[in-house]
Amino acid sequence: MNKLLIVGTVAFDAIETPFGKTDKILGGAATYIGLSAAHFNVKSAIVSVVGDDFPQEYLDLLTERNIDISGLEIVKGGKTFFWSGRYHNDLNSRDTLDTQLNVLADFQPKVPQEFTTSDVVLLGNLHPLVQSSVLDQMTQKPKLIVLDTMNFWMDCALPELLDVIKRVDVITINDEEARQLSGEYSLVKAAAKIQTMGPKFVVIKKGEHGALLFHDKEIFFAPALPLEEVFDPTGAGDTFAGGFAGYITQSENISFKNMKNAIIYGSNLASFCVEEFGTQRMERLTNQDVLSRLRQFKALTQFDIVLEE
Amino acid sequence: MNKLLIVGTVAFDAIETPFGKTDKILGGAATYIGLSAAHFNVKSAIVSVVGDDFPQEYLDLLTERNIDISGLEIVKGGKTFFWSGRYHNDLNSRDTLDTQLNVLADFQPKVPQEFTTSDVVLLGNLHPLVQSSVLDQMTQKPKLIVLDTMNFWMDCALPELLDVIKRVDVITINDEEARQLSGEYSLVKAAAKIQTMGPKFVVIKKGEHGALLFHDKEIFFAPALPLEEVFDPTGAGDTFAGGFAGYITQSENISFKNMKNAIIYGSNLASFCVEEFGTQRMERLTNQDVLSRLRQFKALTQFDIVLEE
Repeated sequence: MNKLLIVGTVAFDAIETPFGKTDKILGGAATYIGLSAAHFNVKSAIVSVVGDDFPQEYLDLLTERNIDISGLEIVKGGKTFFWSGRYHNDLNSRDTLDTQLNVLADFQPKVPQEFTTSDVVLLGNLHPLVQSSVLDQMTQKPKLIVLDTMNFWMDCALPELLDVIKRVDVITINDEEARQLSGEYSLVKAAAKIQTMGPKFVVIKKGEHGALLFHDKEIFFAPALPLEEVFDPTGAGDTFAGGFAGYITQSENISFKNMKNAIIYGSNLASFCVEEFGTQRMERLTNQDVLSRLRQFKALTQFDIVLEE
Repeated sequence: MNKLLIVGTVAFDAIETPFGKTDKILGGAATYIGLSAAHFNVKSAIVSVVGDDFPQEYLDLLTERNIDISGLEIVKGGKTFFWSGRYHNDLNSRDTLDTQLNVLADFQPKVPQEFTTSDVVLLGNLHPLVQSSVLDQMTQKPKLIVLDTMNFWMDCALPELLDVIKRVDVITINDEEARQLSGEYSLVKAAAKIQTMGPKFVVIKKGEHGALLFHDKEIFFAPALPLEEVFDPTGAGDTFAGGFAGYITQSENISFKNMKNAIIYGSNLASFCVEEFGTQRMERLTNQDVLSRLRQFKALTQFDIVLEE
């Protein structure tokens, strides 16, 4: 079975949306990525850190899905990273109410021996130095390295971010971040410029407006599934990345053609994530649900205009 | 050859975008619709009104494309409808600088005898009473009636708008207008509600984010083609509607499956419209250009995940 190494936060989130609010619930990029990638036939591991306030049931939730957590450090007497945010009425923007780094402040990632030869590495949104440190520990060149990041690191750690971006094959960022990173408004131009920074593949996430995959002169677009109601967008981007990386790891194929399928799987999984608060929907998502929605994605996008050669 | 009746403005536009500005140039919904529908094998006619300040070369531009203008009234001593607008930097919003209704103020549409039996009627954006009057003149039930409208009529002539909406098969509006008309934020809910008002098919245009087609429980999505640069969005929605209606008229097939293709053709044609100011790009667009871009749309959206039944 192919190996997928996941790096990212494991956290407590407190979320407010127009539909309600939660107390501290399970969150974090690596959590969402792990739950999403668990729908593929891969051996995955999470490298992260929590405090000893992190409940056993949350750890069980990961191990029950065959996610290796030997690289998930538990700091005695430490407190788990906490994020709290409030979404605006359109759910397209949010305010951060509180961020407590806690054990994340001094995090030194340690990749378990077995996963230093991972086929695919997904560097979830974290300080770029942490992302680089994980790559330094790989003893064998991964088939594919995927990096997710955000505008915060562009503002606060741009040189370190540019260093790690040089080392990856795929970058996933949202449209505003692509514009900020490239200085180009047009997403076509932005993606072209970002490809000169290192990654041969650029994925631009547009939330409810879908996602674009760029490579050289090729472009692929996956829509978001139109939903009756979006309850909570938290984790959608991570779930998307987890589906993308999970599918690539399983299929062992890093062609552009296969990445199209991976983008569709990512969008598929993300469409479930937003249906309920936090990880709730992902926790009880079945492979049958995913398959059924894949049919919806086909119906949504496929047409049969016949072109003569 | 099947007949397409087009109703809408024929106008002068003055446009400012971040890339430049134009003096009075050819504009109007029916103009863009006609230029777009001319790429299909159909017999089309424009019902509209201009003043005698409207240049012969603009009339020639329409008749050279086999567009019947016997229903285009030329008011002696009258002035042609004029619109002037300035786009914001992101090109997603604009301010109207000037609107001079002129001959449009007293416009009484007259459908040429031959086109009272049209196969498809496209009611471009105009006062809903004008749109209704055109339908009243049809002597044979059209296979498909398509209505385009805008928020202005929802604000100023809602009862008349609701009356004409009841009589059409397809409505095309943008996302904000769909929300305003339905009172629903979710586009899925909005489309469902609008279907109860009359049209069995609802097309929601999202500009650079593509277009959605809703019918009963079915949804289809066509992306906008990602472009290096959008120069001028004026007329893109009309061009989209013209491509949609032109394809349907030519193919004589009003199934949901065929409408998917029509939506793709509409997006295809609209993607050219925005590349230059006003009608410039549409005036020299060849069928070969359209075919070539259709291949891009296929590459952009089609994937090959095999689903077992």
